[in-house]
Amino acid sequence: MIKTQQPIGVFDSGIGGLTVAAAISRLLPHEQLIYFGDTAHVPYGDKSVELIGSYAERITEFLLDEQKCKAIVIACNTASAAAYSLLRDRYKGSVPVINVIDPMIEAVIADDDIKSVGIIATKTTIASGIYQEKFSRRKPQLLFHPLATPLLASMIEEGFYNDNISSAVLEEYLSHESFKSIDGLVLACTHYPLIKKEIDYFFKSKVKLFDSAEVVASKLKKILEAESLINSERKDPNRFYVSDFTQSFEHSTKIFFGKQVKLELMNLWK
Amino acid sequence: MIKTQQPIGVFDSGIGGLTVAAAISRLLPHEQLIYFGDTAHVPYGDKSVELIGSYAERITEFLLDEQKCKAIVIACNTASAAAYSLLRDRYKGSVPVINVIDPMIEAVIADDDIKSVGIIATKTTIASGIYQEKFSRRKPQLLFHPLATPLLASMIEEGFYNDNISSAVLEEYLSHESFKSIDGLVLACTHYPLIKKEIDYFFKSKVKLFDSAEVVASKLKKILEAESLINSERKDPNRFYVSDFTQSFEHSTKIFFGKQVKLELMNLWK
Repeated sequence: MIKTQQPIGVFDSGIGGLTVAAAISRLLPHEQLIYFGDTAHVPYGDKSVELIGSYAERITEFLLDEQKCKAIVIACNTASAAAYSLLRDRYKGSVPVINVIDPMIEAVIADDDIKSVGIIATKTTIASGIYQEKFSRRKPQLLFHPLATPLLASMIEEGFYNDNISSAVLEEYLSHESFKSIDGLVLACTHYPLIKKEIDYFFKSKVKLFDSAEVVASKLKKILEAESLINSERKDPNRFYVSDFTQSFEHSTKIFFGKQVKLELMNLWK
Repeated sequence: MIKTQQPIGVFDSGIGGLTVAAAISRLLPHEQLIYFGDTAHVPYGDKSVELIGSYAERITEFLLDEQKCKAIVIACNTASAAAYSLLRDRYKGSVPVINVIDPMIEAVIADDDIKSVGIIATKTTIASGIYQEKFSRRKPQLLFHPLATPLLASMIEEGFYNDNISSAVLEEYLSHESFKSIDGLVLACTHYPLIKKEIDYFFKSKVKLFDSAEVVASKLKKILEAESLINSERKDPNRFYVSDFTQSFEHSTKIFFGKQVKLELMNLWK
């Protein structure tokens, strides 16, 4: 098989990462995607770095060894925070491994209007300190305000957005004292694009919102171009694997991917 | 070791089952408890029956073979719905295996004032149909109204109760049309005792609430008495194991157990 025709592997703790897969599909329509959602272990947000690292390693083995992917996208902030350096060190030189965090950092620091930025994410992402560390190092004058917002991902997965519940939950989180003077907000979880409009409404469009899906897709495109890995003609359809199958997951793919997709069960931990 | 002095094994998908462990501790203070919270796989509520069954089997092996428990309490409605018959068939005759569902069914059908009962639980518990089937078979004239309320367990685990968020979420769920004429409500998840007061307030104390912790502890006591397994003098302290450790889990034990306990990491899936 010609390398350019090999698929792109995209993985997440569950189905939230489909927002990233959808953005990649829009920007790179000729690429075949192999998506893996680790629904047997979802959510990653409260789990330890060690455990998430071991899950991410097994998934990456599947995507590279069995699915022959030419690039890996970690479409999950928690997994990017917990497992990116592990995967990069292990696969350096063989395939590009792209996380969702670095492209977000680049987008924020490149924007000279942003002096003070909030970061909302799961507990594990915030506790990892990765955004804080990268902002400090790369743009020391930038003020940043991290806040763990652990209920948001479950809330969105259960279909609560644009309603009374999501409004109450967002009001509670976004009213945080440290967000009074921000001019930018990083939506550091791949579920959050679905509540972007509500967040924008809360801040009366006065805060610029950064979401992962678009920036990661652009970053991937640049890397594939630089490494001459762009596919010009897709042969095979996208595949969507999950480590645990329920009707509910399949139904929810519509929310995240824009249309319902067929999920295939692939338990890597049997 | 004398059998009566062997510990009681209690397990749950995470730390919500500590409400049951606390009730057992109050009622049977001389018993040693071995608690196992499967925090590496929490929550069970959206996962498939097959996967939950495999997790429950491994945990039960640990509690029986390694910890030498004299009885097993499945302190989780989802695991009871998905895995009880599996465990009962496998261990029948060796040790008592107690689930949280049957004692709740008994408490409801024994109450002649209850003509129409609501059931709130996770998706997997409701989809299993276990409450519906048992009510139909044992008290055909009883009307029942099952409703999946998947956000409640995450909400409570994140510390949202007795506040604006829990009030908005409960209002949304409990206003369901089918709950207009109920006179009883089964809180069919071991997290829900923590929002019992709020639910009572929503129904203006006009609906009788059934929660698992107390009824399961009473059932366990009766079984241990019947099988002459009651311990009269505890030698060893309770132990609390989890399959993934985070500070956040340990901190949350205070909410569910009434006081913070020391969690020990025990990954059974390495």
